[in-house]
Amino acid sequence: MYAPIMSEQIGFLGLGLLGTPMAANLLDAGYRLRVWNRTASKADQLVARGAVRVDAPADVATRGGIVVSCLWDGASVGEVVRGGLGGGLIERLGAGGMHISMATISPEASRELAEQHRAAGVAYVEAPVFGRPEAAAAKQLQICVAGADADKARAKPILVAVGGNGIFDFGERFGSALVCKLAGNFMIGAMAASMSEAIAVSRAEQVDPRLVVDMLTSTLFATPLFQRYGKMFVDGMSFSRSRIPDKDLGLLHDAAVACGTTAPVASFLRDHFRTK
Amino acid sequence: MYAPIMSEQIGFLGLGLLGTPMAANLLDAGYRLRVWNRTASKADQLVARGAVRVDAPADVATRGGIVVSCLWDGASVGEVVRGGLGGGLIERLGAGGMHISMATISPEASRELAEQHRAAGVAYVEAPVFGRPEAAAAKQLQICVAGADADKARAKPILVAVGGNGIFDFGERFGSALVCKLAGNFMIGAMAASMSEAIAVSRAEQVDPRLVVDMLTSTLFATPLFQRYGKMFVDGMSFSRSRIPDKDLGLLHDAAVACGTTAPVASFLRDHFRTK
Repeated sequence: MYAPIMSEQIGFLGLGLLGTPMAANLLDAGYRLRVWNRTASKADQLVARGAVRVDAPADVATRGGIVVSCLWDGASVGEVVRGGLGGGLIERLGAGGMHISMATISPEASRELAEQHRAAGVAYVEAPVFGRPEAAAAKQLQICVAGADADKARAKPILVAVGGNGIFDFGERFGSALVCKLAGNFMIGAMAASMSEAIAVSRAEQVDPRLVVDMLTSTLFATPLFQRYGKMFVDGMSFSRSRIPDKDLGLLHDAAVACGTTAPVASFLRDHFRTK
Repeated sequence: MYAPIMSEQIGFLGLGLLGTPMAANLLDAGYRLRVWNRTASKADQLVARGAVRVDAPADVATRGGIVVSCLWDGASVGEVVRGGLGGGLIERLGAGGMHISMATISPEASRELAEQHRAAGVAYVEAPVFGRPEAAAAKQLQICVAGADADKARAKPILVAVGGNGIFDFGERFGSALVCKLAGNFMIGAMAASMSEAIAVSRAEQVDPRLVVDMLTSTLFATPLFQRYGKMFVDGMSFSRSRIPDKDLGLLHDAAVACGTTAPVASFLRDHFRTK
């Protein structure tokens, strides 16, 4: 399906829960890797497997090469791109270079980044990703992409190598892939809020919530996502312990407002998770 | 799997969108049928197929026989059971009779009905149903049941014959099956609210909502339910045109409050659908 140039060097920024198995997948696929993470020790395992750790984000780049970033938010992507933390990624990639950004940031922030890359002759591909760390390790990630067709074609083997099982093309307009990512996380939030509340009401009504979850996740909601969250909630875990719902519901709401519309459900859910 | 007594007569109350195909399934299975509906003309097709139309709800009953009701709410079930509209169903069924109520009503209302049946020696089975009219016609309904084990065993062949593909036993405590039904409709409401809002934001962001819906309903939310609603919302249809979300979100919320807890998400969604 894809033919990586085995000696090709990739830069990788952001070794979080998702970034680490994705970077490991690139090593598995035969790429040489230069890695950076804010907390340097998170690279230890990858270094033991042959990755080169660098001290500043821009140092992962080779001129004309490819850098994949898997960072937390728009601020952290902007920081490495525009030169905080010891130098700008764009300048180091230079004309012909490519930056694949997998972070979940606002569509507007992505369009600003795209413009900054364009001005420097660096290709930019917006590639937000769905999947948990286990899915990354199993190469079962779902990746949405937006950007110039030629750039997406160049990025595709890399996206497959990081663990992309499905690659969904949202066209050339930046922000589009991120809208889908935010929509998906919003729907996950709505599922989590309603399911956990339904479980609480079941308990109050003296109904074994396992029966309720088993019935619903074997019929109307028979997907691994609902099954996993159902089990989590029955076991007493809370959704809002993750920082993701707060960030991503906020991004969806702000994107709606920036377009002159509203997102009352997303706004309510964000507030709801803050108090849960 | 089940062996209906071909000449057995069943009473059927409530020939709405779901009741009508369910009653037709009973005719298909060889049962003789006495039917009643508030709007009598809705029985025309069933009468043409051999059902007997009666003028008052209690007239569907034979002493010691079985009546299935598929009514709108607790008030309408209470009315036929307790004798409004020309006589009480319970008295006409008498000792040894059985009433299978498939309506989505409050757990508390179901427990009151159960007590009234018990006092008259009439078996009562709570059997709320998931499924659209097409699913009823295709005998693909999912039915949750609560009640005495012996009564559920007697009801089971009837529930299979009305179109039950899955029968989920919630034990002997009344209200339990209804909690699951309300939980499921609540989760459908949360899905609908988040998906339709995500589609609106996609449009505002100039993203083809079809791409978003196709991506999400082929991966994270790959179920017929999400696929059908996704298509509906992309085509511009609204969820809140149905009276069901308002009623059932209200029932879930009220059930929570009656147990001394809260259901803020259900309460918000009910208000949200009223303004949409």
